[in-house]
Amino acid sequence: MRTKMCEMFGIDLPIFAFSHCRDVVAAVSKAGGLGVLGCAYYTPERLREELQWIDRHVDGKPYGVDVLLPAKYEKIAKRSITAADLPPEQTDYLRAYLDAHGIPPLPPGAAEELIKDEIEKINFTREQAERLIETALEFPIKLVVNALGAPPREMVESLQARGIRVGGMVGSVEHASKHVQAGVDLIIAQGMEAGGHTGDVTSMILWPQVVDAVAPIPVLAAGGIGRGRQMAAALALGAEGIWCGSIWLGTTESDLTADMKAQLFKAKTRDAYQSFARTGKQCRILKSKLTEAWDQPDAPSTAPLPLQTAVMAESRLRIERARAVDWLTCPVGQIVGEMNESQSTRQVVYTMLDEFVDTMQRMDALMTEAD
Amino acid sequence: MRTKMCEMFGIDLPIFAFSHCRDVVAAVSKAGGLGVLGCAYYTPERLREELQWIDRHVDGKPYGVDVLLPAKYEKIAKRSITAADLPPEQTDYLRAYLDAHGIPPLPPGAAEELIKDEIEKINFTREQAERLIETALEFPIKLVVNALGAPPREMVESLQARGIRVGGMVGSVEHASKHVQAGVDLIIAQGMEAGGHTGDVTSMILWPQVVDAVAPIPVLAAGGIGRGRQMAAALALGAEGIWCGSIWLGTTESDLTADMKAQLFKAKTRDAYQSFARTGKQCRILKSKLTEAWDQPDAPSTAPLPLQTAVMAESRLRIERARAVDWLTCPVGQIVGEMNESQSTRQVVYTMLDEFVDTMQRMDALMTEAD
Repeated sequence: MRTKMCEMFGIDLPIFAFSHCRDVVAAVSKAGGLGVLGCAYYTPERLREELQWIDRHVDGKPYGVDVLLPAKYEKIAKRSITAADLPPEQTDYLRAYLDAHGIPPLPPGAAEELIKDEIEKINFTREQAERLIETALEFPIKLVVNALGAPPREMVESLQARGIRVGGMVGSVEHASKHVQAGVDLIIAQGMEAGGHTGDVTSMILWPQVVDAVAPIPVLAAGGIGRGRQMAAALALGAEGIWCGSIWLGTTESDLTADMKAQLFKAKTRDAYQSFARTGKQCRILKSKLTEAWDQPDAPSTAPLPLQTAVMAESRLRIERARAVDWLTCPVGQIVGEMNESQSTRQVVYTMLDEFVDTMQRMDALMTEAD
Repeated sequence: MRTKMCEMFGIDLPIFAFSHCRDVVAAVSKAGGLGVLGCAYYTPERLREELQWIDRHVDGKPYGVDVLLPAKYEKIAKRSITAADLPPEQTDYLRAYLDAHGIPPLPPGAAEELIKDEIEKINFTREQAERLIETALEFPIKLVVNALGAPPREMVESLQARGIRVGGMVGSVEHASKHVQAGVDLIIAQGMEAGGHTGDVTSMILWPQVVDAVAPIPVLAAGGIGRGRQMAAALALGAEGIWCGSIWLGTTESDLTADMKAQLFKAKTRDAYQSFARTGKQCRILKSKLTEAWDQPDAPSTAPLPLQTAVMAESRLRIERARAVDWLTCPVGQIVGEMNESQSTRQVVYTMLDEFVDTMQRMDALMTEAD
């Protein structure tokens, strides 16, 4: 297969994999696609470790990173946040909610330190993002993707000067134009069925709109893709490749806990819903007893990004220690309804390709009969 | 082109058009597709007139009707509703809201009669639906579609005994199974980007899920289709044809007012949003000053279906008389962002086909190069 995206990166398959897990990133690149490590919550030291591992395991195939490069950092966070920033209304509400539902508190002696460690991982300042990019530049990365607004133009140019391609993730045609002005090499158009921060426009509508709006800049289709028929639909709609995230969460390589994977395999399509619970911004996540805490009539409104993430840190620790599986949640798209068992990453790629080839043959027959 | 849906109805193009406008229905059937008249708010007398007109103008091509055949009518309405049923909280709120925003009231002498006439059009009882179907059976209809739950099995069988095919519209895989049990001939899987009453699952996810769940019963794809690339995507995802509604609203044949069409052409994708304002049930409609009345912090919750439709009747009359164009609304899908000018229905069909053929050729080339 030869799409513009295959040519741009010298890859066999126009399949891009977003994952926080190095094993998935390496496996997709080795299978002929391109793995992209999501490193928003990594320290530079941890990121270095992960990229060293990937670089050793990827057999020279290309890979990339996904960071947060907002055009205006100050809108998000002027400085790192600490436990002192925790908004009392939301923090107290959630603590009382977990107490009332029998989730044990953290051990009194260790609680403060554990919460502090979690909150320190939330890195949304310009300095933090720049340190992550500097660390990534120690490695032969081929792609940097950002997902929180258009990146600063000078940063795009400095990456491109090193031969690195820059991609911008968008959920609307209006956002796409801002990324084009910032000079990106490719656009990832993500429909609202995707996991994580999403807008309101579905993939069926968004992809062709963005393809037309940014041409000749190539577009990767994201949101709702986990099987070959959806890959074929993405190409039919004008995309030059696909970008998948959720589908790797259940793989044998995924570093999610067995409990979390089991909850994903049990979930139905509509259990992946848009909520402000996780980050304070509209984000598609797995519905659980924890997210439902914020759907109660007496719940306060969620705190803004990134404070809501900090509010949620303590509850996550409590739930994991209690192994309260009904309370587990993570970002995931509507494709979760199709995820029912663990497969290797390579098997996911090849199952997708098989259905893609079948689909293309079925389409071909449809047209041949039309002659 | 030969899909199962073309074979079932002996049509050239697997394009199904839902419209409340007889001219659109006839034009699509004549162009080689199949027009379906939405007759939920028609009296039997009016429906007879419309079908007589279609039958005279359709050159012997097949057409169908779309009615409301809920399995349990009693859940919706035991008897016809009247002005005496209007819930005071919602009625008073909306009246005061329009007053405060300078929309003149109806003329005092005529108001009562005008409102009564509007409310009488709301027909949700079993008796009303049966009278509509009996009327439709005076004509050689080929398809009856229902969109409010699975139809009673005996009604499906009695239609099939007359050689009429029955289709069921669904927004989730769970609903699809109920329709299959009721014995329908085809399923219309409608993603949440569609106009009108919709669920929460997007077309990209819903279509292949429903196709697999109801096989070998053929599926029409609905929700987000207005152009040839989307038609190709629908077939790639496993549908045997497409069902479009919104795209006809702006045609020269559409009987919407020029003001309403102008508002649709101005609208962006995200102006078609899911709201309870119109019917009391989740329904994708054009955002307007009227729908925003129900988004205000001090707004009461909307009344249940069908009472909310009755609540809204008076405001619609006031807005139309005032020609307050910013207040106009109608059900429409996210495809509204692509609707920018009036074309004939035939031209819409052929523009769609052109892009479809181009898309299929592009897909074919992609595979040929892969060899």
